[in-house]
Amino acid sequence: MLAVPAKLAGCREVVICTPPNKEGKVHPAILFTAALIGVDKVVKAGGAQAVAAMTYGTESVPQVDKIFGPGNQYVTAAKQLATQKGVAIDMPAGPSEVLVYADESAEPAFVAADLLSQAEHGIDSQVVLVASSEKVTQRILKEVERQLQKLSRKEIARLALENSVAIVMPNPDKALDLINFYAPEHLIICVAHEEEAVAGIVNAGSVFIGNYTPESAGDYASGTNHTLPTYGYARNYSGVSLDSFVKKITYQKITAEGIQILGPTVEIMAEHELLEAHKNAVTVRLKSLKDK
Amino acid sequence: MLAVPAKLAGCREVVICTPPNKEGKVHPAILFTAALIGVDKVVKAGGAQAVAAMTYGTESVPQVDKIFGPGNQYVTAAKQLATQKGVAIDMPAGPSEVLVYADESAEPAFVAADLLSQAEHGIDSQVVLVASSEKVTQRILKEVERQLQKLSRKEIARLALENSVAIVMPNPDKALDLINFYAPEHLIICVAHEEEAVAGIVNAGSVFIGNYTPESAGDYASGTNHTLPTYGYARNYSGVSLDSFVKKITYQKITAEGIQILGPTVEIMAEHELLEAHKNAVTVRLKSLKDK
Repeated sequence: MLAVPAKLAGCREVVICTPPNKEGKVHPAILFTAALIGVDKVVKAGGAQAVAAMTYGTESVPQVDKIFGPGNQYVTAAKQLATQKGVAIDMPAGPSEVLVYADESAEPAFVAADLLSQAEHGIDSQVVLVASSEKVTQRILKEVERQLQKLSRKEIARLALENSVAIVMPNPDKALDLINFYAPEHLIICVAHEEEAVAGIVNAGSVFIGNYTPESAGDYASGTNHTLPTYGYARNYSGVSLDSFVKKITYQKITAEGIQILGPTVEIMAEHELLEAHKNAVTVRLKSLKDK
Repeated sequence: MLAVPAKLAGCREVVICTPPNKEGKVHPAILFTAALIGVDKVVKAGGAQAVAAMTYGTESVPQVDKIFGPGNQYVTAAKQLATQKGVAIDMPAGPSEVLVYADESAEPAFVAADLLSQAEHGIDSQVVLVASSEKVTQRILKEVERQLQKLSRKEIARLALENSVAIVMPNPDKALDLINFYAPEHLIICVAHEEEAVAGIVNAGSVFIGNYTPESAGDYASGTNHTLPTYGYARNYSGVSLDSFVKKITYQKITAEGIQILGPTVEIMAEHELLEAHKNAVTVRLKSLKDK
């Protein structure tokens, strides 16, 4: 999810950091994928220490320009510190979130499965249901309870659900206001008038539309990037994409004729900002052209 | 430079903060320009306090999603703190910089004027000359000394120049390596083989090409944005542009047929990551389709 856009953008050196297991090994699937994509270096380290190593560079870890990817609260703190040491990061990251917006057209078993797939991530996962009626809510919560019993990670999921909320919001405009205010990382829209709902979304990381679009499809196979803004940052950050690895430089070349046209404007602006040398940089050029 | 791309990007609320003078007034040119562009609100405050007000919101200052624009070290510190409170910023900012790369084809008086227009900004301005020979360097420095005498801000400029460097670098490849390592905010290229030099630049904020392209043209009139990365951040940040105000949301809608094709992949991936509920979100859908 991170190395592919980096390679597409033409990054010259792509490093991944991944924590080894107790035997000091990295899962072969990770190594195979890294080789497949063309990652230049795999560092067997994770956490804040990996962020520090890439920020400063060590004998074995290259110093890098951008550090991207999710992590726990220590990783997030380390990444924020790294921005003061010359490194760019993707975005601040918090616990993962899903918000499902459902009405009578939503299949309760599907919605319940989506809520639970977020809840199993960790006890700090954020799971929100916005439903059009009390009846819709009850049908979904009943399914949640039924499916929860079968999960091996049911204790984690149950603790996450205790911090979660279901909100009944019959008015569609108010429901959209609420969704945009919350700015969910993952937003699943399962309502009859899905086009109107989608058009009203301004703050979300990635949007999953309709009964057959589970969040887990985005995690693994639908093609969208799942490195997404959490904790309300979808208000002002985009998810990672090729653009995240592209840098833009601006260029200008002014001809002798061009500076004669633009120059006087620059002189007036600089003079009024009391920046005499700024003005003079144009004046010496205009004078030299006049003298020719 | 900041409000125009914000308006072009369709931002719904654009606020500018500007410090008033001792009489509590804002310069009419600022107010006129703000009205011309369509800025929604002008706040008479500057510095870290303005950043704080926009981060948290007050009775009279709106809470905003992005805080952009240069400032002194206190403003930079305030903006970095703001990123921990839900605000996005453009980039970390340091003192302004220019690097001029010159050879025999450069007009010494023009280069000197460009170096001085950066030096007059403040005593912490960074002014760097990379020249192809000792002779080129001496001719430019002689011009700097001559022009400096005439400036009203000559004391500031002289102090800035004391912290500045002129580097003789006859090998063009090494000169480019040095420039890319320094990653200047403003880069002026005045060499005979300008196309080769421009092609070799990977790290710079904005590039000014040829004898008739002073940096001050970029500040006021050439059309490029002058909110640019400083302090080496041109390695990993772009200057402000319309893109800086655009946010991207990804969308996906999978059909009943689509989930039957993609679903098994998701199930395998989720199973191997031991995320049973992620797998189940697909399984319940596939099962329901099979039962139909």
